[in-house]
Amino acid sequence: MANLQASHPELVTAPVAIGAVVREAHKRGETIGLVPTMGALHAGHLSLVETSALQCDLTIVTLFVNPSQFTEGKDWERYPRDLQGDMEKLAGTGAAIVFAPTAEEIYPQGHATTIDIGFLEKILEGRCRPGHFSGVATILVKLFHLIPADIAFFGHKDYQQLKVIEQVVRDLNIPIKIYGCPTVRDKDGLALSSRNTFLSQEQRQQALSVRKSLQLAETLIGQGETDTRVIVSRMREQILTSGDLHIDYVVLADANTLEPVSSVKGPTVALVAVRVGDTRLIDNQTMVP
Amino acid sequence: MANLQASHPELVTAPVAIGAVVREAHKRGETIGLVPTMGALHAGHLSLVETSALQCDLTIVTLFVNPSQFTEGKDWERYPRDLQGDMEKLAGTGAAIVFAPTAEEIYPQGHATTIDIGFLEKILEGRCRPGHFSGVATILVKLFHLIPADIAFFGHKDYQQLKVIEQVVRDLNIPIKIYGCPTVRDKDGLALSSRNTFLSQEQRQQALSVRKSLQLAETLIGQGETDTRVIVSRMREQILTSGDLHIDYVVLADANTLEPVSSVKGPTVALVAVRVGDTRLIDNQTMVP
Repeated sequence: MANLQASHPELVTAPVAIGAVVREAHKRGETIGLVPTMGALHAGHLSLVETSALQCDLTIVTLFVNPSQFTEGKDWERYPRDLQGDMEKLAGTGAAIVFAPTAEEIYPQGHATTIDIGFLEKILEGRCRPGHFSGVATILVKLFHLIPADIAFFGHKDYQQLKVIEQVVRDLNIPIKIYGCPTVRDKDGLALSSRNTFLSQEQRQQALSVRKSLQLAETLIGQGETDTRVIVSRMREQILTSGDLHIDYVVLADANTLEPVSSVKGPTVALVAVRVGDTRLIDNQTMVP
Repeated sequence: MANLQASHPELVTAPVAIGAVVREAHKRGETIGLVPTMGALHAGHLSLVETSALQCDLTIVTLFVNPSQFTEGKDWERYPRDLQGDMEKLAGTGAAIVFAPTAEEIYPQGHATTIDIGFLEKILEGRCRPGHFSGVATILVKLFHLIPADIAFFGHKDYQQLKVIEQVVRDLNIPIKIYGCPTVRDKDGLALSSRNTFLSQEQRQQALSVRKSLQLAETLIGQGETDTRVIVSRMREQILTSGDLHIDYVVLADANTLEPVSSVKGPTVALVAVRVGDTRLIDNQTMVP
């Protein structure tokens, strides 16, 4: 009975209270793992939590649908929220604390400071969603201060986001380690995303072409193809022949800097963003020629 | 002899090394005071150091002419630098450590992240020096991470800068206390500034009108004047009749938000910026009606 209770995380909502929790843990000499999420948890998030629990003494999961990273208020409003369901899903994963503040507590009246990330804001997801990564960077810097963890865990699925976070932590000398975890997929290959719940059965079937296009890129590069125009063209064809998908971008880029490459030479990442109906999906695959 | 040696601060130049110093101090349970400067120290800086030494166990002074806060490279190049002289001046002030990194160590190749502070960037000093406060905020956030002090000390002379720092620390939830110290003046009333060394004797005499205009504002408000147009007009007259000064701005603003006010009701700050020859000078005075 005691064990069952212990496996449920404790819910903390006040920024002041989470600070006290962290200070107490540090006094005890414990390492702290942080898993920032917007809730609507799926197995991808839970694998981040489990990875943190393996590496750190105390794992804190944040559930916060961050308004500043949504380009449109509408998208923020329709983003799925399920605090009770998320708490249930976290039971037994090793999460000790859930931090779920209100938007008013995080962005009080007069909040005016944001993080500008430069180049990465202007390409791919940044270009499609103006202000998105600035919002992501701002909330994460705030969370890193509210919860000064030793390691923070993020998924490879949001690859550009991971690069943004690594850059911000490096540039601002934030004393935290960033740990990137592999993308978790459903059996059919679709990368897990909170937005997948918006897909109809037919749309989901069409969306699988995104993953297939990434696998095609991997195959082509394995066969010695290095011309990214050829690879991108074949990827687009794969997606467009699979149904009514709108391509936002299909790009091959340097895996570290995300600068576009014309020829595959070193570590490369293929990045795809599509819209299926009203739902936007992204996926990626890193490759070494 | 031992005492004399102990009164000289230790010089640290590597970011990695300063982190180790701070961690050791925290392990010993010591409080840390931080005085960020661009060097070319004068009695104003030294009073910040002495205030820190009174309040904290370990005082760290940074000497770094931060390129990202200069609008023109020319101004950055001509900014006075005197590491040896600064080290001498700090002897006996209570400064234990001087951190003087190179620009390359602070801004390595690829550095792309900056802090955007919103409204305060667009007015007064921010408007006259585009990007200045973003550069100030960025270097300070970096320093606050490299040297996680308990309190950081800044002068009231750079009043808008103080408000920028308070905002950034509040908005980004940085766990540091900001302590504002009174402006230190020469006997003739001129606010101490590293730029004062550029003034000829005649220019210095003319520059005194800045302080006089602030005293005039105080007198007028003491006499019951509340119309800021009247006060500003009298201040400008005071400055312009004193010699060949170019006024960048003369403003009365809310002392907390720096929003301009048309009528003096609550805590107010008068802010003046002038150019005397090639040299830009600022000063201010807070007032309560």
